[in-house]
Amino acid sequence: MNFKSDNVHGCNPEILAGLAEAAKGTVDSYGDDPVTQRVEARLAEVFEHEVTVFPMTTGSSVNALILASMVDPWGAVLAHPESHINVDECGAPEMFTGGAKIIPIEGENAIMDSGTLKTTLDGYSFGFVHAVQPQAISMTQATEAGAVMSLDEIATLAGIAKDKGLKVHMDGARFANALVALDCSPAEMTWKQGVDVLSFGATKNGCMAAEAAVFFNKDLAATTHYRRKRAGHLVSKMRFVSAQLDAYLADDLWLGNARHANAMADRLTEGLKQLPGVDFMSPTMANEIFPILPRAVTAKLREAGFDFYDWGTPGAGGIRLVTAYATDPADVEAFIEKARGLLMEDAAD
Amino acid sequence: MNFKSDNVHGCNPEILAGLAEAAKGTVDSYGDDPVTQRVEARLAEVFEHEVTVFPMTTGSSVNALILASMVDPWGAVLAHPESHINVDECGAPEMFTGGAKIIPIEGENAIMDSGTLKTTLDGYSFGFVHAVQPQAISMTQATEAGAVMSLDEIATLAGIAKDKGLKVHMDGARFANALVALDCSPAEMTWKQGVDVLSFGATKNGCMAAEAAVFFNKDLAATTHYRRKRAGHLVSKMRFVSAQLDAYLADDLWLGNARHANAMADRLTEGLKQLPGVDFMSPTMANEIFPILPRAVTAKLREAGFDFYDWGTPGAGGIRLVTAYATDPADVEAFIEKARGLLMEDAAD
Amino acid sequence: MNFKSDNVHGCNPEILAGLAEAAKGTVDSYGDDPVTQRVEARLAEVFEHEVTVFPMTTGSSVNALILASMVDPWGAVLAHPESHINVDECGAPEMFTGGAKIIPIEGENAIMDSGTLKTTLDGYSFGFVHAVQPQAISMTQATEAGAVMSLDEIATLAGIAKDKGLKVHMDGARFANALVALDCSPAEMTWKQGVDVLSFGATKNGCMAAEAAVFFNKDLAATTHYRRKRAGHLVSKMRFVSAQLDAYLADDLWLGNARHANAMADRLTEGLKQLPGVDFMSPTMANEIFPILPRAVTAKLREAGFDFYDWGTPGAGGIRLVTAYATDPADVEAFIEKARGLLMEDAAD
Amino acid sequence: MNFKSDNVHGCNPEILAGLAEAAKGTVDSYGDDPVTQRVEARLAEVFEHEVTVFPMTTGSSVNALILASMVDPWGAVLAHPESHINVDECGAPEMFTGGAKIIPIEGENAIMDSGTLKTTLDGYSFGFVHAVQPQAISMTQATEAGAVMSLDEIATLAGIAKDKGLKVHMDGARFANALVALDCSPAEMTWKQGVDVLSFGATKNGCMAAEAAVFFNKDLAATTHYRRKRAGHLVSKMRFVSAQLDAYLADDLWLGNARHANAMADRLTEGLKQLPGVDFMSPTMANEIFPILPRAVTAKLREAGFDFYDWGTPGAGGIRLVTAYATDPADVEAFIEKARGLLMEDAAD
Repeated sequence: MNFKSDNVHGCNPEILAGLAEAAKGTVDSYGDDPVTQRVEARLAEVFEHEVTVFPMTTGSSVNALILASMVDPWGAVLAHPESHINVDECGAPEMFTGGAKIIPIEGENAIMDSGTLKTTLDGYSFGFVHAVQPQAISMTQATEAGAVMSLDEIATLAGIAKDKGLKVHMDGARFANALVALDCSPAEMTWKQGVDVLSFGATKNGCMAAEAAVFFNKDLAATTHYRRKRAGHLVSKMRFVSAQLDAYLADDLWLGNARHANAMADRLTEGLKQLPGVDFMSPTMANEIFPILPRAVTAKLREAGFDFYDWGTPGAGGIRLVTAYATDPADVEAFIEKARGLLMEDAAD
Repeated sequence: MNFKSDNVHGCNPEILAGLAEAAKGTVDSYGDDPVTQRVEARLAEVFEHEVTVFPMTTGSSVNALILASMVDPWGAVLAHPESHINVDECGAPEMFTGGAKIIPIEGENAIMDSGTLKTTLDGYSFGFVHAVQPQAISMTQATEAGAVMSLDEIATLAGIAKDKGLKVHMDGARFANALVALDCSPAEMTWKQGVDVLSFGATKNGCMAAEAAVFFNKDLAATTHYRRKRAGHLVSKMRFVSAQLDAYLADDLWLGNARHANAMADRLTEGLKQLPGVDFMSPTMANEIFPILPRAVTAKLREAGFDFYDWGTPGAGGIRLVTAYATDPADVEAFIEKARGLLMEDAAD
Repeated sequence: MNFKSDNVHGCNPEILAGLAEAAKGTVDSYGDDPVTQRVEARLAEVFEHEVTVFPMTTGSSVNALILASMVDPWGAVLAHPESHINVDECGAPEMFTGGAKIIPIEGENAIMDSGTLKTTLDGYSFGFVHAVQPQAISMTQATEAGAVMSLDEIATLAGIAKDKGLKVHMDGARFANALVALDCSPAEMTWKQGVDVLSFGATKNGCMAAEAAVFFNKDLAATTHYRRKRAGHLVSKMRFVSAQLDAYLADDLWLGNARHANAMADRLTEGLKQLPGVDFMSPTMANEIFPILPRAVTAKLREAGFDFYDWGTPGAGGIRLVTAYATDPADVEAFIEKARGLLMEDAAD
Repeated sequence: MNFKSDNVHGCNPEILAGLAEAAKGTVDSYGDDPVTQRVEARLAEVFEHEVTVFPMTTGSSVNALILASMVDPWGAVLAHPESHINVDECGAPEMFTGGAKIIPIEGENAIMDSGTLKTTLDGYSFGFVHAVQPQAISMTQATEAGAVMSLDEIATLAGIAKDKGLKVHMDGARFANALVALDCSPAEMTWKQGVDVLSFGATKNGCMAAEAAVFFNKDLAATTHYRRKRAGHLVSKMRFVSAQLDAYLADDLWLGNARHANAMADRLTEGLKQLPGVDFMSPTMANEIFPILPRAVTAKLREAGFDFYDWGTPGAGGIRLVTAYATDPADVEAFIEKARGLLMEDAAD
């Protein structure tokens, strides 16, 4: 009963079937194949926009390559201090950009505060050679705190950035979970609000190892062909990355997966909310929940076979639970029941 | 009938089966899973040596990360000018090492000439701060010219390098093809001759996207954990990369694949050798063959549906044909027959 | 009457005399000359410690090279967010380290808060490959807010760092000003409190273009020879950089210069403190002062020929005044008098 | 009697006088000063072309920054294998460009062979993502073998480059020596033949530490402001670098210096040519000469107090002698006389 991350799960049978189908026959390598072309066409349709698509196998590489297409080595990306690009990629953005900086902009629920973003940019020394130059912002949807930005929030941050000539990146490692939470169109959640390039995550939501850099701004894509190759991210038998994305997008598999994951998170949240003494670090809006439990309780939950990460301030009892396309409803109920029992014991002590 | 590369083929059914099996249930991500551990154990057994293994999805990333573990940014790798790391990775070694140089050492059949290597190192300004410092050599087995280095050749180059304190890398993108050609043990072809770290290729020989950096010298592996992550090459659902390698190594699938590929290349070579006016740029020793044919003939072969690359001096008529684990013997015979017919026509003109 | 920085001044006549003397005859280049050796000996004596010294021409290069000797590309330096390395070097540390991060640690007067430093390190995910790894701290003495750290403050931060195995860098762009302010020995202000490597500034305090990386920890210096050359910072006629440092250290020129600069800052502070409505952003402890004046007054001071930078929150009226070895006491008095007159006018309005 | 390099000499008295004059008063730092502006104007006049000028303190930094303005990290510079950028800068171009490659083009006297350059570019895989992309050529004037390229040779190489869209760099570490050798105008030796950016050397020819990147193509200069700062090469008291260049250009000091240096090299060459058994590796055309002498003779010349480097194939007896603006004619005569005596002894043995 592993709630550590959505990437502890395997993949949909449809993905396996797609791979088996793609395995047949010979095709040219490095992306010059029909399934890769079909994926690009599918994404253009899904997003109602011309796109240039780079299928890859990890989210960190997609994020870092996109940022490298946006900022110079002396550039800067403004992002929330808790953003994945800032704290969970071991400096991949710095490596791929040639040393650009990430300037942290605080805000609630891992969303940059728009006032702080504006003030920072208004007071910034643009053109002053001693200072790195802000050239992009990056926001995560859904955020690292489990929040889902509203369309207005996206538009506001993007607008502030664009007013200063900055590019706009969205890290969509959990794009589908946010999308079904907002119940809007992919276009509405991205380029219609000013997003230039999207990290379109699929691995966490049912694929094996498949992500895509989706460029709405095709000019930015021009150098990415070279950047991807020299970063070692141009997979030779590309059809096998593309086939995952193809199956993922077919028949709305991706949306169904995300709906299930979110429903499981909602049920977990609801269940835990009923229990005495359970608080939450942030609201549940997609497929991550951040409850605070007595430490004795979390220890015993682990003993009982539930796996999850501690989160937030060390020692404060916060944990993170992540649900996914394959989360078993029975595991969710078991978690709630076990927590209920332990909390009652704990209260009795 | 695609002979452009071994990576134009799909993958073995055993690989698909391995993935399907691996897809079950939850496991921790980023390599902390049983199948990844099993692959490391398997490789230790195959190589009769303790190893640290980093499964990844591309050969360029494996090569570049290994070189980065061996040389400083002001270091240099000595390698053949035609080596994949020098001409086919768009500067990945330079990116991953932080700017180290590749010093070209000429030699026949894409094997560094040992005399030239020795002379270069003997005359080198070690310790002179104006010059980049040689810290590693890299050799490819089988080579980019289709040759297979003998154990003595490997030992000689490695010995020269080690005498000067350099590390030794082997790019084994076609490791299995070379191994079955030499009919020796994996240990004999690597660490027993002085190889410190091996790029163990599997994609070209039947996997989807699976390669491994295999460190015999475990000290060199220490920093690679961080380097792999920041290069975006730590796949989250690692089990799916490892499962490919696991199936590949099981029941000698890899060796059977390579034997078939080499046999197909031998048959092609034999067949073409019988034909009038066919010359070869280099001897066929593994699964690549480099014939020289009249240009009119290569054009008509293409029209007839055979696909392959031109190779060598532009305009000289050289081509490269690559066979693989899945090459159909009928395609090989068809190629020979078609070539025979076209050559006779050509001679008649 | 330029108070913009200490680097708006020229240089001491003694520096010019040193250069003229050094210009005579032929000597080997790139530092293999007697004057460079003498400077290293002088610094060993000044610091009462064996040292490895790298004379260079800019402070940014000295800082960046030192940090590169301390941290891996996936490493991190903890420093105050206002530190010169973080905001005034256009990403030089990132470039020289190959992409390491600077993790900001807040604190008053541009001094890292020791509690925050300790909490950050105690809670840090050391060994977790997703996170950059803290490997050094950097503190500035005197700080970017004009403060001088006490020996205890230095020792406390260095101690916290060393407990976690981190290296300790001191950016001493205004080292002499801090030293005479504390009235302690150079040894006491550096290695005796745990500093491993010092950026020894001299340009701002009377030289033309001369700084030195002073390694107390000689192991860390080993790679710097190559790093300096490949960064283009190995001056060929090194004697001319060294001759500046030589003259600077001879006859305590450097200490006299710093005493004058600090005295001028004290006088300015004292004079302004007497005036109505003048506040200070931080205490004057060396040669920088940070008064807050009505904006109408600062505008008129500029019209009157006084030059200085606005500082701190845009629009809040803060300015920075920097004095130097060559600041004319008459200019200081003139500034105070003019400010007095303008403030009285302003109050009368 | 040091003939090791032109940088073993000090500097002209005029340079010292210029520094003394520049030391007076306060001026804004980082190049916003009158003398820096004057230098730019002087160079515009000297070159009869609008220019953007970046004064710096080392030749390696000037070369590397210029190349970084011309090529992407996945780009390549074509240059002679013996070029300073390839073998004497410890990888500075690779560091500054973010990992671009230098593709060696052989040729006599360290001049790229134009046929080889053309063939290489004609056969190059432009647009092929697996290969680094040629984006610039770099030639050295005078070359590392002491040759001076004719205007035709410059134009031919530049023309081949421009036909393919490549930029053209000239490394002019010994620009003045080449210029007076050709007896042409600075414009004729540079932009009139297609040079986009010049490394204008001054240190070796009488300055202390002063070089300049001179951009005829101003578009290329745009990013160099940031690149220079983050490389730590923006000297704060810039007036002191500029003052050297100012004095250097005034009253044709630079041309007189170069004429003297070349005359000394001519005299040495002439003198040695008269001696029996002296051969030359390459013709003397500027201020470097490359004689071949019996090894017993070179050893005894060193014992007699003459200093110089061995050059070329180790053990073959080649040496390099460099003359400079301050070379004493008496030292030249002494060298010739001593060589004469030793050669006669040697012949007698």
